[in-house]
Amino acid sequence: MNLLLLEPTDLVEHDRAILHGRRLKHLLEVHRAEAGDNLRVGLVGGAMGTGCLLRLNGSEAELTISLEQPPPAKLPITLLLALPRPKMLRRVLQTIASMGVPRLVLLNSYRVEKSFWQTPFLEPPAIHEQLILGLEQARDTILPEVLLEKRFKPFVEDRLPQLATGSLGLIGHPGSYPPCPRAVTEAVTLAIGPEGGWIPYEVEKLCAAGLEPVQLGERILRVETAVAALLARLF
Amino acid sequence: MNLLLLEPTDLVEHDRAILHGRRLKHLLEVHRAEAGDNLRVGLVGGAMGTGCLLRLNGSEAELTISLEQPPPAKLPITLLLALPRPKMLRRVLQTIASMGVPRLVLLNSYRVEKSFWQTPFLEPPAIHEQLILGLEQARDTILPEVLLEKRFKPFVEDRLPQLATGSLGLIGHPGSYPPCPRAVTEAVTLAIGPEGGWIPYEVEKLCAAGLEPVQLGERILRVETAVAALLARLF
Repeated sequence: MNLLLLEPTDLVEHDRAILHGRRLKHLLEVHRAEAGDNLRVGLVGGAMGTGCLLRLNGSEAELTISLEQPPPAKLPITLLLALPRPKMLRRVLQTIASMGVPRLVLLNSYRVEKSFWQTPFLEPPAIHEQLILGLEQARDTILPEVLLEKRFKPFVEDRLPQLATGSLGLIGHPGSYPPCPRAVTEAVTLAIGPEGGWIPYEVEKLCAAGLEPVQLGERILRVETAVAALLARLF
Repeated sequence: MNLLLLEPTDLVEHDRAILHGRRLKHLLEVHRAEAGDNLRVGLVGGAMGTGCLLRLNGSEAELTISLEQPPPAKLPITLLLALPRPKMLRRVLQTIASMGVPRLVLLNSYRVEKSFWQTPFLEPPAIHEQLILGLEQARDTILPEVLLEKRFKPFVEDRLPQLATGSLGLIGHPGSYPPCPRAVTEAVTLAIGPEGGWIPYEVEKLCAAGLEPVQLGERILRVETAVAALLARLF
């Protein structure tokens, strides 16, 4: 927790907050915080700054806050990701939040097991929890938007062309394609496939929506590693 | 498992192998393999190619193999990593193996908790297991070399200068440093700090050994994400 993130409901006045639960536990057990300590704080959806601990005990902590800094810029990207298996999903949500992805579309694919759509980790509070962990890690306050698209074809045919308009559209896909570009300055729409990759029909459909396949070399990376590697290379 | 990796002890003849255990289970349960199936196979430390399943049942699988392809090239890097916490260590070992790091030095640092050095995940068979998972993922056969350096100062003073000779020496470190270079062609020695970062004394010592701090932006990334991002940006 490199940033103590406050939810609007934690504020008891505009410059005073009271904390319970996980964050209190973390302050006590990991930071070994004491009254008088200064902490980096941020307001979810708002600014960042400093908090001063007035008091804390086993049940709550109270702090005054002063929020004057803007959060860091997001990357100009919309990331489409074939829904990963549940355990990977949680980590990927943290990764994309920490790296500054503002919009994630979790998409169905032929190689996504149907059961993955049933995981409790896709429920809004569970997604929120992982995104917050990513923001706390990276020191950011703005939650990425996460969209669930359980039907590949209607999304890619009807909505993706508009979503990708004006951006560089890329499909991360192993094969004899051009290498993924580096240090781009324009907005990007990037589609990353499931374990085993997009099937040819899906690549065709993504291409018809204006995206082009690019590769990262012959090594096949786990989704989480591929996401970090592609984002770091692009921006 | 994108590549079935054989250990030399699996070979009963130069072109025939017998498998048990985890890989057999994976073939049966995930690949749903049957006699007659062709698989991508590789020999740990050797070449890659094709295997044909002669027979398999609940206790063993037998296959003929033909290995003619070289494994993919490694990255020209020596990675120094402050020892991560045990759970992260396991994933990082997979990540570095999958991305083609040939040599990893796990190093002590002021911010590495002493208990991390006691984890059973540092025992050679445990390290081997995670590296193999990374190689299977990426389709590679060559195990990275992993060195444990429990004493920061003697390593950085006495051994690092020689290790880093002739390479671009970099320290991944948040702060007002030059951005991490992109698409380098020379060999690199890269040092990545613990959660919380290297302390100033350590940065000084690493600089004295010929390394220079570079940054990846104001976001603080988990070690595993930082490793993938820095490698993808450098090469």
